[in-house]
Amino acid sequence: MAEQVTAEQVGVVGLGGMGSGMASRLLDQGVRVAVFNRTAAAADALVARGARRAGTPADAAAPDGVVISMVANDAALEAVSDGPDGVLSRLGPNGVHVSMSTISAELARSLAARHQARGSLFVAAPVFGRPDAAAAGRLWILQSGTSAAKARVRPVLEALSQGIADAGEAADAAPIGKIAGNFLIAAAMEAMSEAFALLEKSGVDGRAWHDLMAKSLFACPIYANYGRFILDRAFTPPGFRLVLGAKDVGLALSTGKEKQVPLPFASVLNDRFLAALAQGRGEMDWTSIALNAVADAGLKP
Amino acid sequence: MAEQVTAEQVGVVGLGGMGSGMASRLLDQGVRVAVFNRTAAAADALVARGARRAGTPADAAAPDGVVISMVANDAALEAVSDGPDGVLSRLGPNGVHVSMSTISAELARSLAARHQARGSLFVAAPVFGRPDAAAAGRLWILQSGTSAAKARVRPVLEALSQGIADAGEAADAAPIGKIAGNFLIAAAMEAMSEAFALLEKSGVDGRAWHDLMAKSLFACPIYANYGRFILDRAFTPPGFRLVLGAKDVGLALSTGKEKQVPLPFASVLNDRFLAALAQGRGEMDWTSIALNAVADAGLKP
Amino acid sequence: MAEQVTAEQVGVVGLGGMGSGMASRLLDQGVRVAVFNRTAAAADALVARGARRAGTPADAAAPDGVVISMVANDAALEAVSDGPDGVLSRLGPNGVHVSMSTISAELARSLAARHQARGSLFVAAPVFGRPDAAAAGRLWILQSGTSAAKARVRPVLEALSQGIADAGEAADAAPIGKIAGNFLIAAAMEAMSEAFALLEKSGVDGRAWHDLMAKSLFACPIYANYGRFILDRAFTPPGFRLVLGAKDVGLALSTGKEKQVPLPFASVLNDRFLAALAQGRGEMDWTSIALNAVADAGLKP
Amino acid sequence: MAEQVTAEQVGVVGLGGMGSGMASRLLDQGVRVAVFNRTAAAADALVARGARRAGTPADAAAPDGVVISMVANDAALEAVSDGPDGVLSRLGPNGVHVSMSTISAELARSLAARHQARGSLFVAAPVFGRPDAAAAGRLWILQSGTSAAKARVRPVLEALSQGIADAGEAADAAPIGKIAGNFLIAAAMEAMSEAFALLEKSGVDGRAWHDLMAKSLFACPIYANYGRFILDRAFTPPGFRLVLGAKDVGLALSTGKEKQVPLPFASVLNDRFLAALAQGRGEMDWTSIALNAVADAGLKP
Repeated sequence: MAEQVTAEQVGVVGLGGMGSGMASRLLDQGVRVAVFNRTAAAADALVARGARRAGTPADAAAPDGVVISMVANDAALEAVSDGPDGVLSRLGPNGVHVSMSTISAELARSLAARHQARGSLFVAAPVFGRPDAAAAGRLWILQSGTSAAKARVRPVLEALSQGIADAGEAADAAPIGKIAGNFLIAAAMEAMSEAFALLEKSGVDGRAWHDLMAKSLFACPIYANYGRFILDRAFTPPGFRLVLGAKDVGLALSTGKEKQVPLPFASVLNDRFLAALAQGRGEMDWTSIALNAVADAGLKP
Repeated sequence: MAEQVTAEQVGVVGLGGMGSGMASRLLDQGVRVAVFNRTAAAADALVARGARRAGTPADAAAPDGVVISMVANDAALEAVSDGPDGVLSRLGPNGVHVSMSTISAELARSLAARHQARGSLFVAAPVFGRPDAAAAGRLWILQSGTSAAKARVRPVLEALSQGIADAGEAADAAPIGKIAGNFLIAAAMEAMSEAFALLEKSGVDGRAWHDLMAKSLFACPIYANYGRFILDRAFTPPGFRLVLGAKDVGLALSTGKEKQVPLPFASVLNDRFLAALAQGRGEMDWTSIALNAVADAGLKP
Repeated sequence: MAEQVTAEQVGVVGLGGMGSGMASRLLDQGVRVAVFNRTAAAADALVARGARRAGTPADAAAPDGVVISMVANDAALEAVSDGPDGVLSRLGPNGVHVSMSTISAELARSLAARHQARGSLFVAAPVFGRPDAAAAGRLWILQSGTSAAKARVRPVLEALSQGIADAGEAADAAPIGKIAGNFLIAAAMEAMSEAFALLEKSGVDGRAWHDLMAKSLFACPIYANYGRFILDRAFTPPGFRLVLGAKDVGLALSTGKEKQVPLPFASVLNDRFLAALAQGRGEMDWTSIALNAVADAGLKP
Repeated sequence: MAEQVTAEQVGVVGLGGMGSGMASRLLDQGVRVAVFNRTAAAADALVARGARRAGTPADAAAPDGVVISMVANDAALEAVSDGPDGVLSRLGPNGVHVSMSTISAELARSLAARHQARGSLFVAAPVFGRPDAAAAGRLWILQSGTSAAKARVRPVLEALSQGIADAGEAADAAPIGKIAGNFLIAAAMEAMSEAFALLEKSGVDGRAWHDLMAKSLFACPIYANYGRFILDRAFTPPGFRLVLGAKDVGLALSTGKEKQVPLPFASVLNDRFLAALAQGRGEMDWTSIALNAVADAGLKP
């Protein structure tokens, strides 16, 4: 990439697998990066590569600058946004907070309003993809926010992704789209789990079946990869922890409740995730909801 | 294709869109074809292209020959199999009946036994794909049956398909795999329907969202094509009639009952299809189960 | 009861707990009874009390007489109805077959037609109540059939019951009502099971709660008795075997399918019963579907 | 009642149908009553009968006294509890707040802690029964809280009820029991709705069936009364508004989520209530969720 992504510093708040991957990608692209994480050690490798270590979320944001947040849930985003150390206190006019986590529609609206009250901007830009895609700049991004704000951060989002879709002006549009997307993934997992249970108990070769599906009608990453995880019962280490999947299905239901939209599949999924949590699978990969169908069918786990 | 598919006559019983497409493909490949349909006119175009018109299902089968059936449901397959005019009466030793419809596990086992009792062979070879794929020899086939029987019909199935997966020796293995596959499709339709309803009622641009999904995690025919049908509410003319989809979901449930495998998603789907039938959408495309989610959300149909 | 119930012989076919109880009650009331059971020993106690032992179902029916059947399922009712030994061969004009088992709507219609073809009558009169209620003449009966047929058997049904409701003329009306009633019971069981699981995991005293419910809004046998079975996990010996409950929920779903009526609760119940069967609880009491909610919640069984 | 219930004043905060009924009953029993309602006119009739009109929730509470709250939801209870006008500011040591509304487990715990911090007491005492039962002192009460607090308010609760069950010491025990009870009611409504839809579409006389059920296995108020409302489609004026029922089912689900207890029936109910709200039935009686089953079956509303 001959042209520079941006001359300004970009803050990255939240250095789990996803946040670290994005910060790393920005460093690769020659961007000046400031990083913050609640537990500081997560920043070490990035600092060694030239990132500036910020002492607080506010410190990761420059006045008039761009700061990205990628944290675990609504509460964590509140924690890095509010208070004297929060990014809201620092960004100022024309500064932009790009929220890339999966958050509730309600928090997106609330944060957008709080930013607006201070003259700063808010873009919701949740992503699809795993940490390796983040590090390679191969994420898929769904964004929403005002046109001005989106234009301001376009080069940064392009550096991180292979595709950006625009969900509209409303602060909560992209978050709702992300919630709907994760619901779609979870539904595919459950559908495959039920199908595999039926095949296994019927003595049908599930791998041959899956191979055919995954190279024909369902020739796409979710069915190819997640189907294999389920067939192999490869649930640890987790690619995405079940407890976070449960949170996301919960967001689908709470959004459905707010908007008065019944979601029968999400309801089944919610019951599946609660059972998995109750049975102690919260730290396994979320594909391990497949074990519910396995147990229900009286098959060996 | 320099080499000849087969020197022998192949019978095709059942000339709906799928059966006609397959017969046409075989003619294209230089195969001698005998065709039978309950209402004779469906055979006219094929006869004009050189197919032999058979007066009965039995007449479409040659002793020691290969006959394909592609009919609407279990009852129709019974009707063309049994009795003095049925294919069972005629095939004789080494003759093979290739059942390519979506049928119940129970009927597959029963037919295999009846063929065995007469010395003829039975292969279950249900397909994924629409009529245009059939006519182009681009189907996906899942087969099961004895090795000898499968070897016997291999060239014919290859002429019809772009891929063949083997589900095993049991007569009902491929039918159960087909039932599981159609369940997977129906589940994807319902998941998208719920997601679209949530997005629409939240004022989020469903098309932008679908575009992103269909070129990233869900970049595969079912999500790309069926998603568009649902967005466009393009439910007529039907590509696959809802009444047939209801039958297939019913087969998933009855197989689950036989094998003692609970299928919560299939249960939700069954209720959706019953509501759609009760509300008069049996002759629309099966993607029109999306209108249940639309109505539940209080959106305009 | 000063007046005689009936001067004629009444046949009772099927001597499980319910059939035996009914035959015993009729003997108590001074009725001449002929009894038949597939395994003859079940008749011994009744024969000792004066019942005539019939060698075949037909033998239990007198020409122009009344014969009651109380058997396990559709297949068993077919077996005692058809063939040279079946009740259909014997009843003749004005003879009445009173079917008191839980059977499918389809079989009720079919049997009524077969009786009509031979000039005999068919009344469907399924019951609510357990064997002790049968023996005490305290059953609740739902009947359907032609007025003439119902009038003919009225005294016998009154001798067996504390209340008779009339569902109409159609042969399948009472069977569908019985199916709906058993669905209502199963739904109450599942609702209590979920409530108890929630209370137990929340550390709330389930017995105090149940006592209050069962003497106020839900002061009726199903909630009082079945709730106690679930609280006590008193699932053996079975009052009503789970495998029969599974059959009845299956009848609700198949009737819903025939009539195009989605039944979401019945769908959940079907999945619960299948899981219970898959996990080996078919011979326990049907209230043991409660163990599904227990396992889902991660509680000790 | 010869003996006086209590010599002290009892405050009643919240004068909807239930709160008014309870205040009226206390006046009948010779209790001195102070009443508060957000819209003052609701107090007029009670004031005319001798109640003291309080200007604020705090004013309805006497230091060291007893105050009952009966309000619409968590937010309303927060509003009358907190702040300078709230009951918390006034009760002082040995004063007791008896919360009789249906509230969340979380709020019950939180309020109990806030009272404890100020030295006052908190009893959760949600009720089963309609306004007429409140006015007649015929409610059913489920209580939880410390022994001292429960002993303190016992005479008042006895004056209001025909039965009191004790769910334990935990502040949230009775609220969770109430949530479980309302879930049980809603589940009975849905089960009857599905059964009625099946019967109606099958041409079976639903009234005859209901009469039998409601005088035998289901001879209790919920099945007798609510079944009749559904049969008569008597949904206005509402006895209990659907929007409140939706809140209660939501409480069941949120409690299940907190405690990790899957509740498949509550999930179905949640979807039913959301559809009813989306279709504009929020102000009808909550039994009108029956119209979902009616619509799904293609029956006339």
